Amino acid sequence: MDEESFIRRIAALFPQGPDVKTGPGDDCAVLDLGMSEFLLAAVDQVIESVHYLPGCTPEKAAQKLLKRNISDIASMGGVPTHALLSLALDPVKEEYLFAFHQGIAELTREYNISVIGGDMAKLPVRGQCFSLTILGKVEKEKLCLRSNAKVCQGLYGTGRFGNSFLSEHHLTFRPRLEEGRFLAGRYTDAMMDVSDGLLKDACRFAAASDLALSLDTEKIPLREGASLQGALNDGEDYELLFAMDDALFDDLKARWPFADVPVSRIGEFVPGKAGSVSGLDDMKDELDKTGYDHFR
Amino acid sequence: MDEESFIRRIAALFPQGPDVKTGPGDDCAVLDLGMSEFLLAAVDQVIESVHYLPGCTPEKAAQKLLKRNISDIASMGGVPTHALLSLALDPVKEEYLFAFHQGIAELTREYNISVIGGDMAKLPVRGQCFSLTILGKVEKEKLCLRSNAKVCQGLYGTGRFGNSFLSEHHLTFRPRLEEGRFLAGRYTDAMMDVSDGLLKDACRFAAASDLALSLDTEKIPLREGASLQGALNDGEDYELLFAMDDALFDDLKARWPFADVPVSRIGEFVPGKAGSVSGLDDMKDELDKTGYDHFR
Repeated sequence: MDEESFIRRIAALFPQGPDVKTGPGDDCAVLDLGMSEFLLAAVDQVIESVHYLPGCTPEKAAQKLLKRNISDIASMGGVPTHALLSLALDPVKEEYLFAFHQGIAELTREYNISVIGGDMAKLPVRGQCFSLTILGKVEKEKLCLRSNAKVCQGLYGTGRFGNSFLSEHHLTFRPRLEEGRFLAGRYTDAMMDVSDGLLKDACRFAAASDLALSLDTEKIPLREGASLQGALNDGEDYELLFAMDDALFDDLKARWPFADVPVSRIGEFVPGKAGSVSGLDDMKDELDKTGYDHFR
Repeated sequence: MDEESFIRRIAALFPQGPDVKTGPGDDCAVLDLGMSEFLLAAVDQVIESVHYLPGCTPEKAAQKLLKRNISDIASMGGVPTHALLSLALDPVKEEYLFAFHQGIAELTREYNISVIGGDMAKLPVRGQCFSLTILGKVEKEKLCLRSNAKVCQGLYGTGRFGNSFLSEHHLTFRPRLEEGRFLAGRYTDAMMDVSDGLLKDACRFAAASDLALSLDTEKIPLREGASLQGALNDGEDYELLFAMDDALFDDLKARWPFADVPVSRIGEFVPGKAGSVSGLDDMKDELDKTGYDHFR
């Protein structure tokens, strides 16, 4: 199945109402409900043996689920406000479920998120399938969309890439919420997070903005133990990509308050076939074959 | 596991922000975001071999998922506006998934719901686990809560009860959205839907209102093929229960525009231990043992 074309085929089934400013296809949907701010909404799930290994603690699985969703809000320039949980599992053990909810609660208190609803059900076979819907808000002038990148803007990224799984970054990461808030409106209005792999997501970013991308692979900061190919493909980095006028980079560096989070210029949005990428030389064929599949 | 006490234990982990008018425990959460109407939010799931049998068409499974959620909105007196889908399954077949989304789309077009987001993932074992988050809105003066029933009000129900599974009502039902809109604000401000069984849900209704319940079991309308015990226990009726001053019943009957949907007075809210029920005579012990378990 070609995921991108299948998603387009499905999206065509669903007309969007007039209050939907941005529907499926960005990190969050954006609703204009007549408030001073836009409402943001996204859903993401984690599944045992797919997004975490059997034996992972309930707290870590829970927090990964929540943090994935917070990362989606961060990439719109917003703040998370409310969450709804949907849990299906077998066995259903009170001790496990309580620890899972404690893991969620630890972070929702820190982020001021109200957990306003949930559903729990027993799976007919052994397994765990957890879904979370997050709501958030963003000031209209801070909203960041994938489709807002402009030609000749640089492609910038926070943090480092690759080797997320072995390093356990995929469990221990901190969503770039404060970083997103700092960037949104002041330095960029075009942002997304990297969950499916830097290369795949950067191409989606360019495609949404109807631009091509020239990558500067030498400038991609590698997480410890990561190869360049891993940095491009591994996924689960939960870093932010954003488009910015290069003239702002010096000012950004001077004011950037997150000392342990590097910001790097890793490419440029250029005219060309939407979503196409240059700068990979002969790596490209190899990369295409190993691309992270969203349907995992 | 005692579901009710476990849910209370979990709820205590989650403080609610000032914009949460009603948090977990009702059919929907109610948010006051400064709009003229309240925002409603709920999540519910369907799982193969639990909520539908293997071999069920993708359209029917999809529509059950959506209709369960619409029923939650109906019970608050609201209208549904937006939905987010979270699908986990194995095998992942394009044909199945497309038909599933067609099933959703057929109803979202009818109900004017925008499907604004989703996530799809492959399960590591054969199975299907589908979750949907619904958003809705309700005029402040129409909002119905489980906690609003008053002493000496009658307990009323729409439709018929029992035998939902064999009759396939659990798949073919129509959520009582128009009925809820007709009732809300004019005849009642206390309503819920019946998903876990009339007896269990009616007791929850009374408990939320800090009242006891006197059931009039002879007046409970039975779905074809249903016994009284089935009507009390089976669940998946997706009918509305509401509290109303009996003096309004004649007016309601005169104006009720839904000719094929009976409205029946099946009990009364009375002073007493919160959530306790009388009128069951010696059926009670038997019923307690067979109560529908929400963790299924």
